[in-house]
Amino acid sequence: MSYERANIQATAGYLPGEQPADPRVVKLNTNENPYPPGEAVMAALASIKPDQLRRYPPPTATEFRRTAARVHQVSPENIIATNGGDELLRLAITTFVEVGAPIGYAEPSYSLYPVLAAIHGSPVHRVALNEDWSIPDDLPEKMNQAHVQLTFVVNPHAPSGRLASSEQLADLARRLDGVLVIDEAYVDFVDPQRGHDCVELIRRFDNVLILRSLSKGYSLAGLRFGYGIGPVNLIQPILEKTRDSYNTDAISQTLATAALVGRAEAAQTWQAVRDQRRRVSDELNAMGLRCDPSQSNFILATVSDDLAGGAAAIYAALKSAGVLVRYFDADRLRDKLRITVGTVEENSALLQALGRIIGR
Amino acid sequence: MSYERANIQATAGYLPGEQPADPRVVKLNTNENPYPPGEAVMAALASIKPDQLRRYPPPTATEFRRTAARVHQVSPENIIATNGGDELLRLAITTFVEVGAPIGYAEPSYSLYPVLAAIHGSPVHRVALNEDWSIPDDLPEKMNQAHVQLTFVVNPHAPSGRLASSEQLADLARRLDGVLVIDEAYVDFVDPQRGHDCVELIRRFDNVLILRSLSKGYSLAGLRFGYGIGPVNLIQPILEKTRDSYNTDAISQTLATAALVGRAEAAQTWQAVRDQRRRVSDELNAMGLRCDPSQSNFILATVSDDLAGGAAAIYAALKSAGVLVRYFDADRLRDKLRITVGTVEENSALLQALGRIIGR
Repeated sequence: MSYERANIQATAGYLPGEQPADPRVVKLNTNENPYPPGEAVMAALASIKPDQLRRYPPPTATEFRRTAARVHQVSPENIIATNGGDELLRLAITTFVEVGAPIGYAEPSYSLYPVLAAIHGSPVHRVALNEDWSIPDDLPEKMNQAHVQLTFVVNPHAPSGRLASSEQLADLARRLDGVLVIDEAYVDFVDPQRGHDCVELIRRFDNVLILRSLSKGYSLAGLRFGYGIGPVNLIQPILEKTRDSYNTDAISQTLATAALVGRAEAAQTWQAVRDQRRRVSDELNAMGLRCDPSQSNFILATVSDDLAGGAAAIYAALKSAGVLVRYFDADRLRDKLRITVGTVEENSALLQALGRIIGR
Repeated sequence: MSYERANIQATAGYLPGEQPADPRVVKLNTNENPYPPGEAVMAALASIKPDQLRRYPPPTATEFRRTAARVHQVSPENIIATNGGDELLRLAITTFVEVGAPIGYAEPSYSLYPVLAAIHGSPVHRVALNEDWSIPDDLPEKMNQAHVQLTFVVNPHAPSGRLASSEQLADLARRLDGVLVIDEAYVDFVDPQRGHDCVELIRRFDNVLILRSLSKGYSLAGLRFGYGIGPVNLIQPILEKTRDSYNTDAISQTLATAALVGRAEAAQTWQAVRDQRRRVSDELNAMGLRCDPSQSNFILATVSDDLAGGAAAIYAALKSAGVLVRYFDADRLRDKLRITVGTVEENSALLQALGRIIGR
């Protein structure tokens, strides 16, 4: 007999990106940082004492929150630590969306959003992004008319890498009736010359919750550590009520704190990724693909159908050649490949394999 | 403005046990194992490589599940790894309880259960335990009449330490219409002569989900690692649908696996705790307190009001003397203290301080 709730029974669950067992595979499919975590992080790992494991961890990750507050020039009360950024997405829904009320996002986007909505028992309200992946001007009105209580915006956008400015997001926040979650999982890879920073929005708007992740920027996908930055009226109920009482563990709190303290080391990987992003985009464009300008650590490349059979065929051929990229069998994405920016050598391997496949 | 859901706004959140900053405090209030984690665990920690942190972890903790399956002589499909046992409690509710349907438990019990119910938007249906903390015979009928979809039973019981037999639990499972979660957070401390083992129930009943935790038995409260054992019809929807997609991290999976492999080392701490449990109970009884027989790593001691002002006064006096135990300002518990079994030295410190307070 099944004891599942009706909405759980009807849902399919989230399908994570492929993690091949063969270490020789050039893995450019799940947007991990190609460089290892900083030495400060490994030193923090070596410093863990048995008693830190034996005792319960600090329940609200006090030291990490203090550090993150310093980095972002906010107060620790504006920070919540979570078991990966994904936990914050779930907690935002749990905390701010009545069961059955709609959850909004602009399409295409992170495929976890509709899964989380289905688990919660809420419908989703989707608004299509413009042709150039920019956010349509009337998005807030459409969300408000549908009584959306929470809207997710991933910025830089996935899977295109397009960056919306903080002024655009301020405009969204002002016009939306519900909560605006700005998912900044990839923000560390934005060109610093842009001076992009959305944190000031949490002072101006009581409905803005910013998600940060250590998975990509800090090469810590294996650690599961993210955090939220927001006004106290949004952070406090998650911190004190809806999160699991010890949601982050003693080791990850220690390593995450060390990662933020040592972020100069991580910043070198961000610059290396930006340099390679330009190189790979230029070479892909020269090969006849068309890359959207990306401010992230991945590139969305459009492939015309007459090029080696199109995107799906190239994905399969690359996989056979030991290079894994991401193909989405979804509207507006079937003629595209999402390619994570790797190390110099990984990118060379990709470009060589691709050159062979398309005969150049 | 508050954006909280109505039921979240109305709830108070869970209050974890006190974690004093002063390391000199004799800490017998939160049921941690007094002995450090095994050497195998610390060796596993030292073995973590940067690439394990850089990449996403195995999403379903495959290696851990294989190991736990071997330990319990079940299949990996009968195991789910969670971010602490608390995550499994939440996931069981998310998966098996319609919002608004009641959640049941016998009172008194773990104070997190009603908090999780409130977050979910469900009422609780409480049935009082018998005078000796045994489960009342008519509990299943009372739960069924109230249309309870999920019943929590913590066994050994907290805060009394009383153990219900696996036959009793089989009887509950047979008669309950909904899911029975057997919370075995403390089961490692049961006397091995009892031959207690509930795992066989998951083969006989499709509604039994067993929770295990590494927090107490394996001295890993800081790691946040628990797991569920259950029939596939209960495990599969949690594993594939409702848990966060990467709910346990690479380090904790590695350490938890090492802990189970090296459980002979942990078993030595269980025996030491049992020996001290007997010693502390005997000495407390000799001092005029009355200890319930405990199969856990804590002791519930009843204090008559004429003994040094009663339980609350003794709690406060012990705290002033640098010994922290747990006092619950709750029905049926106001004349009692819950005392975690510590090391030989910690227990001596407790008994000496208590002797001074009650003038013996």
